[in-house]
Amino acid sequence: MKIQTPESNKPKKELPFVLAQLHALIQNDLELTNRIILEQLDAQVELIPTLGSHLINSGGKRLRPALTLLTARMFGYTGNQHALLAAVVEFIHTATLLHDDVVDGSVTRRGSETANSVWGSKAPVLVGDFLFSRSFQVLVSHGDLRILEIVADACAVISEGEVLQLVVTNDLSTSEERYMQVVSSKTATLFSSAMQLGAVLCNRPQAEVDRVARYGLLLGQAYQVVDDALDYSATQETLGKTIGDDFQEGKITLPVIHAYEAGTEEERVFWRLCLEDTNHPEGGLQRAIQLVKDRGSLDYAMKRARELVEEAKVELLDFPASPERDTMLKLADFAVDRSY
Amino acid sequence: MKIQTPESNKPKKELPFVLAQLHALIQNDLELTNRIILEQLDAQVELIPTLGSHLINSGGKRLRPALTLLTARMFGYTGNQHALLAAVVEFIHTATLLHDDVVDGSVTRRGSETANSVWGSKAPVLVGDFLFSRSFQVLVSHGDLRILEIVADACAVISEGEVLQLVVTNDLSTSEERYMQVVSSKTATLFSSAMQLGAVLCNRPQAEVDRVARYGLLLGQAYQVVDDALDYSATQETLGKTIGDDFQEGKITLPVIHAYEAGTEEERVFWRLCLEDTNHPEGGLQRAIQLVKDRGSLDYAMKRARELVEEAKVELLDFPASPERDTMLKLADFAVDRSY
Repeated sequence: MKIQTPESNKPKKELPFVLAQLHALIQNDLELTNRIILEQLDAQVELIPTLGSHLINSGGKRLRPALTLLTARMFGYTGNQHALLAAVVEFIHTATLLHDDVVDGSVTRRGSETANSVWGSKAPVLVGDFLFSRSFQVLVSHGDLRILEIVADACAVISEGEVLQLVVTNDLSTSEERYMQVVSSKTATLFSSAMQLGAVLCNRPQAEVDRVARYGLLLGQAYQVVDDALDYSATQETLGKTIGDDFQEGKITLPVIHAYEAGTEEERVFWRLCLEDTNHPEGGLQRAIQLVKDRGSLDYAMKRARELVEEAKVELLDFPASPERDTMLKLADFAVDRSY
Repeated sequence: MKIQTPESNKPKKELPFVLAQLHALIQNDLELTNRIILEQLDAQVELIPTLGSHLINSGGKRLRPALTLLTARMFGYTGNQHALLAAVVEFIHTATLLHDDVVDGSVTRRGSETANSVWGSKAPVLVGDFLFSRSFQVLVSHGDLRILEIVADACAVISEGEVLQLVVTNDLSTSEERYMQVVSSKTATLFSSAMQLGAVLCNRPQAEVDRVARYGLLLGQAYQVVDDALDYSATQETLGKTIGDDFQEGKITLPVIHAYEAGTEEERVFWRLCLEDTNHPEGGLQRAIQLVKDRGSLDYAMKRARELVEEAKVELLDFPASPERDTMLKLADFAVDRSY
């Protein structure tokens, strides 16, 4: 197989203020996490670190590992093991992205070509498997069965959610509840698990573990709801991936569910044509974007996301004020206010 | 997504004598393993058990889980946990097959359509991920970190081997040593781990764990070498998958490495055309089959496989004679004598 490498790396995007604050607060922890990631990405077969680091170093926000680090710090953790767990969280996230992009045939992510665009779809499937496996090796060496349980459960729920998403693709009878089930499992579970890892590492009582887990779940739900809204409202430059991907792939997301329900019969015919028969008329995406705007479907989705993050923030209020807790509160707002 | 199911299940092939003997010896254990497999395959999203059982119930030989069961029995095990570990071994095997068939674009396996032929390539990637994850959930519930380590290490080595195989595809400069490295990691590692699991479950001393592990590794190597030879010598009916798949995919296996080295310059041009440029002339497969026969390359591969199983058998000779040990000795011969 001929191995290509991407021709150039894109310039780094400037971080929004809250992320810059976050990164400043846990800079050493994030650097340690990055070192562990590079170390654990090492393998005899060079394509593994090459392909893995293509995505891992592509300017992701490191949101999920940051949650593990922040939670551990919020609970006064002073060791180094939180960075190991954060690296695992990023590995699991990366593995799911590699497989997702193959399954969806996506060509752009974070403003760069996807791994499957550069190397074809075979290598990312196998390197994703490697990242899953390496994650469990790292956790076994860490040696805490409670931690292993959290990650194994998360992986099972995530993959089940991905299969569910596949099943409901092209199905406009998908309910908002079913949609939220997909969102919770495929996205919010890892946010929630990232939080749990930090709390369990610090041996916090179950009630506190549950509270941070719930913050993570609600934050992750909001994050994905916003993501799905951005697919109909962002510009490609800010989004970092192709606008309208969900529409092209027949994914039934919240703006569509709302616009379909609120639409006229003629509009429903349009949605069915595009999303069920995947028979896209010229200008289909433009019309879809217009419809989700006109029918108030984007506003509806953003309102749902706002409700979710407000609920999320409540979960943190009983913990003593700390820079970590405050950052998590701001992160919740960022999840809704972001434009990418 | 429309869910199709295969129209009919093919009639069961009659088992060769040694496999029938094996199945009789551990019938109860295999039945318990099958029950655990069905139980653990259960998920809220129906496509997961449907797709998973399509492959798991397609008449595989259950060789790898049988090795775990046999090893535990050989060491006098009387509990039920060996069946749990055997089920995990079959899950890992199934997950790798699902991903392999997607990566290779294979259409037939065990005489039936592959999962990717029936459901497309998306679902098998995700269901494979589910099987990996569920395996680790089961192992966490079992709660032995040594067992978890064996499986996590195996998964990492297997996926690394799969990536290596991808890298050396279409590369006729691949050495026999490099080929054996691919075979060891992608196939023999799981045979070896299946044996280790049985021994570690019985708390055997490390020297004994190492011995059965080495038997498994050598058996697995031989098994794959024979598999690769059969791709140029079996009939499609006995093989259960498409003859010449490796050739079509540009896989560099032992018969090819030998025939290329032993070939005339004109023959080498032919091999390069077919395997490096993947520009198959009419009758290319027939000529390749003829060449690996005429150059003694099949004989060479079978001789290597025979040497490997003889080495494998030696590893078992210091254990007291028992029906389980005897069956493993016969299994080694079967690995070479089989025609599918």
